[in-house]
Amino acid sequence: MNKYRFTGHRKINNFIEFSLWAPVRRKVELHIYQPFDKIIPMKKDSQGYFTAKVECCETPFKYKYRINGRHEFPDPASFYQPDGVHECSQTYLNSEFNWQDSNFNNHRLEDYIIYELHVGTFTDDGTFFKAAEKISYLKELGINTVEIMPVAQFPGERNWGYDGVYPFAVQNSYGGPDGLKYFVNECHKNNVAVILDVVYNHLGPEGNYFSNFSWYFTSKYHTPWGDAINFDDKYSDGVRNFFINNALYFLENFHIDALRLDAIHSIYDLSANHFLKELNSECKKLSSKLEKPLYLIAESDLNDTKIIDYTDKGGYGIDSQWLDDFHHAVWAYMTGETQGYYSDFGNIEQIFQSISYGFVYRGNYSKFRKRCFGNDSSEFDGKNFVSFIQNHDQVGNRMAGDRISHNIEIHKLKLISAFYILSPYIPMIFMGEEYGEKNCFNYFVDHGDKNLLRAVSEGRKKEFREFYKKAEFKDPACKKTFESSKLNFDLIEKPFHKEIFCHYKKIIDLRKKYISYIMTGRKNINVILENNILTLKYTLDKKKLVLKFNFSGNNTIMPGWSYTLKLEE
Amino acid sequence: MNKYRFTGHRKINNFIEFSLWAPVRRKVELHIYQPFDKIIPMKKDSQGYFTAKVECCETPFKYKYRINGRHEFPDPASFYQPDGVHECSQTYLNSEFNWQDSNFNNHRLEDYIIYELHVGTFTDDGTFFKAAEKISYLKELGINTVEIMPVAQFPGERNWGYDGVYPFAVQNSYGGPDGLKYFVNECHKNNVAVILDVVYNHLGPEGNYFSNFSWYFTSKYHTPWGDAINFDDKYSDGVRNFFINNALYFLENFHIDALRLDAIHSIYDLSANHFLKELNSECKKLSSKLEKPLYLIAESDLNDTKIIDYTDKGGYGIDSQWLDDFHHAVWAYMTGETQGYYSDFGNIEQIFQSISYGFVYRGNYSKFRKRCFGNDSSEFDGKNFVSFIQNHDQVGNRMAGDRISHNIEIHKLKLISAFYILSPYIPMIFMGEEYGEKNCFNYFVDHGDKNLLRAVSEGRKKEFREFYKKAEFKDPACKKTFESSKLNFDLIEKPFHKEIFCHYKKIIDLRKKYISYIMTGRKNINVILENNILTLKYTLDKKKLVLKFNFSGNNTIMPGWSYTLKLEE
Repeated sequence: MNKYRFTGHRKINNFIEFSLWAPVRRKVELHIYQPFDKIIPMKKDSQGYFTAKVECCETPFKYKYRINGRHEFPDPASFYQPDGVHECSQTYLNSEFNWQDSNFNNHRLEDYIIYELHVGTFTDDGTFFKAAEKISYLKELGINTVEIMPVAQFPGERNWGYDGVYPFAVQNSYGGPDGLKYFVNECHKNNVAVILDVVYNHLGPEGNYFSNFSWYFTSKYHTPWGDAINFDDKYSDGVRNFFINNALYFLENFHIDALRLDAIHSIYDLSANHFLKELNSECKKLSSKLEKPLYLIAESDLNDTKIIDYTDKGGYGIDSQWLDDFHHAVWAYMTGETQGYYSDFGNIEQIFQSISYGFVYRGNYSKFRKRCFGNDSSEFDGKNFVSFIQNHDQVGNRMAGDRISHNIEIHKLKLISAFYILSPYIPMIFMGEEYGEKNCFNYFVDHGDKNLLRAVSEGRKKEFREFYKKAEFKDPACKKTFESSKLNFDLIEKPFHKEIFCHYKKIIDLRKKYISYIMTGRKNINVILENNILTLKYTLDKKKLVLKFNFSGNNTIMPGWSYTLKLEE
Repeated sequence: MNKYRFTGHRKINNFIEFSLWAPVRRKVELHIYQPFDKIIPMKKDSQGYFTAKVECCETPFKYKYRINGRHEFPDPASFYQPDGVHECSQTYLNSEFNWQDSNFNNHRLEDYIIYELHVGTFTDDGTFFKAAEKISYLKELGINTVEIMPVAQFPGERNWGYDGVYPFAVQNSYGGPDGLKYFVNECHKNNVAVILDVVYNHLGPEGNYFSNFSWYFTSKYHTPWGDAINFDDKYSDGVRNFFINNALYFLENFHIDALRLDAIHSIYDLSANHFLKELNSECKKLSSKLEKPLYLIAESDLNDTKIIDYTDKGGYGIDSQWLDDFHHAVWAYMTGETQGYYSDFGNIEQIFQSISYGFVYRGNYSKFRKRCFGNDSSEFDGKNFVSFIQNHDQVGNRMAGDRISHNIEIHKLKLISAFYILSPYIPMIFMGEEYGEKNCFNYFVDHGDKNLLRAVSEGRKKEFREFYKKAEFKDPACKKTFESSKLNFDLIEKPFHKEIFCHYKKIIDLRKKYISYIMTGRKNINVILENNILTLKYTLDKKKLVLKFNFSGNNTIMPGWSYTLKLEE
């Protein structure tokens, strides 16, 4: 039995083959709307896959699937939704793009310097084409890797991307699949790698017709979004197949270099073969086939090394994971904030721990979680963790969407940015951070379903009820909230912002210069905390790179909130 | 912070110390009913444990806990419920039993020959004292290990044990804690080990007052019994502490040699430190302290080697697990039954696989489960699996409760019993199997709550609706169903039953004689399937123990349904 099955559509000789997984359906037809109107019967096989073949024509097909001769829905594995989540799917042939990235010099994961961006707000018109125009800017800053927030087709006109419903269909308003390819191609021509954020823990609520085709969800587990995606219940093979194909689809057809796996703690799988382990194994097979490294980076709220551990040690083999504890430790200490999960942080010792061992919570009791949390990460390498002082969540999920630069003074910002960018972890900058963007980055959504939209607004208000301030609260449903989240690169010309930009440029440059020291491995790093001064000593070939960060305002052996870097031979 | 905390009560000098975990409660008092009536304030610490000390007196205390000065409930960690699940808890001092088992010669796990019994139906009066009278009988049969179905206090007068609600309190009608100790002491004096079946995946529905004290349950996961036990949500540390203490309580105070962990697939824990791994680690620490082996044996419906794998390979380190696939393969082949999970079995090749590799489903597609199932168990040793052709579930959860001896002829029964008892797995006999008990073993329950009782009866009928026959169906709520499930050892005097008994005695004897061959390890076992004849070759020191089992009625190189054993030097 062939385990991995193709879903979606593809060109075979002069035909387009459509493949749909709908094991619980007796009868499915392919309804072509354009360029002609025709209903084509489909054949079901023993694994529940329906297929049909249609002779190619010059224009793409617009189509839906027709269930039991009555109800019609877009293709769950649609490659393109030009008219949004409710309308026809459109065929898209991946073979036709003219790639020019054969000279792209694939990075090692340990070299990554990541820039996280949201396509819709990164530029004024919010497209891949405009985003590509900023690549030279990112290069100037020193960035070699771009991470784009999810691009799966979402409902309405604006979204962070986590309400996407067609995981294969690149958002029409961003430029669709050709737009994404154009962007990746331009990045690669400039030797910039691309990470794509993919969401395998839920599907957006609007335009989600998946349950008409099969058991994509299971009531075994509760998630913040309702029933969990079905990774281990009956019919889960097809669901796993669907998402694994999705990962391979982007890695192979869009030349994506790495995937950022959204919130893997909401991927529930208690089967004997965890979905993430299987996903990783298939991605690594593709990597061998393509002769190019492909990485997986997880967002995880588990503090569990199983995610990044080797498979022969019972791990899933994922290459790296976001290190939230690092962020929380630095943020809480620098801002003094104590709400929510920051209540678990706030002292300098935790910054020492996060830089020394990865997780701050390695089995110790968390007041916020009201239980012991995490396991021991101290044996893992720097490249196994991504560090940051901002990201879309840590900014956008604040009531006001305010950034770190709104919260601390410039000399402190310089200190902590130098600290994380020169840390043994893979650094990730959130768009606008590098020049202290004035605009907040807010949570915004749009839905055709206005009741749903209202519910999101109300839910958001409720979330912040404890410290709700009308003046600061931005309604996620307002278009203005989206518009005001856009970057304003013109600021860089102004002294304050220029100073920050030059600083980021300088420390990124230092990271690159000393990368062999910084990525020398845990055993060659010595961390000392004394009088609020954190010292990092990287040892390589008997030479020492010594960094000192004064996490206090006291002028002692060095000025308050300053840092130094010295190479000791 | 001290992670493991004592719960229940214990004697310290001339005082009884009571310890109750109730983190969500502000005020709890100890209400002593007997031998005097007194309400005693309790002190709460930062971990949510309430304690009180009361001077000892000659008679035990009867008590309840009083919440917020109003509602009173028995102690969740009660050591004794002499008047049932709704009434007062009673203090019980573990130190007072007069143990005489110092000569007990602890078995190696690989030597175990297990006899599973249900205390309530094993003898006429259903007590530990009567059960102890049968030890000489079990010794005669060759048994060296007894496994007793759960003994936690359950509601009503009869129960399999899986509706127990007070995990520390040994069932009053069986003889209470002193009864269990008496039984274990007698077993040990006769060099018989004792496995106790413990239930950590749910608590019975009646008499369950646990939620009044803390978050023992979480709605994150659905189980067949409702909300799952809370092993990874907020306040889970105390829940884990409760059940780990429970395991240690029986191993230490009752001299139990091994625990059988009921249905661990319904223990949901996605934390970074799985409960079973932690449980195993604590049991192994106690083993070192007691200088005596202590084993954990899991019932698992996951076909996942993680349960039994070494901890440094990401496993939980559990010693052994029930091998359901072996049972299903043999049962379906021998009886031709195809209902439910037997639809996944039925061919001789699967018997070959279960004896060669452990799991039959090692990642392959299961029609019954409608998904791929399991992972590769072929590297694991025989002692990692328990094999059987009957157990309480496989008999009692049939509509009629009929046994294998009701379903196949005696020569076939002899073949398959020889097969599993001489297999490389740890064999387990279900009470009555050894002489072909005529009485069925049925599912029976009793509840004070008559609506609940009716619901169980109706649910049972519904479960068997496809092939429901009034004549065969036994109402679980009827006392008669319980009474008619009791064993009738007198049968052994009759020829048919005597023949079976003598056969079991003989093959158990053979297992013991050749145990060094049989437990020689996977790499020294060769399995061949040819013309429905299964050959097992155990190689030891250049000698070979060769067993042949003819799984057909054809008289070829050997008579149909016969087996042979030969030592080749």
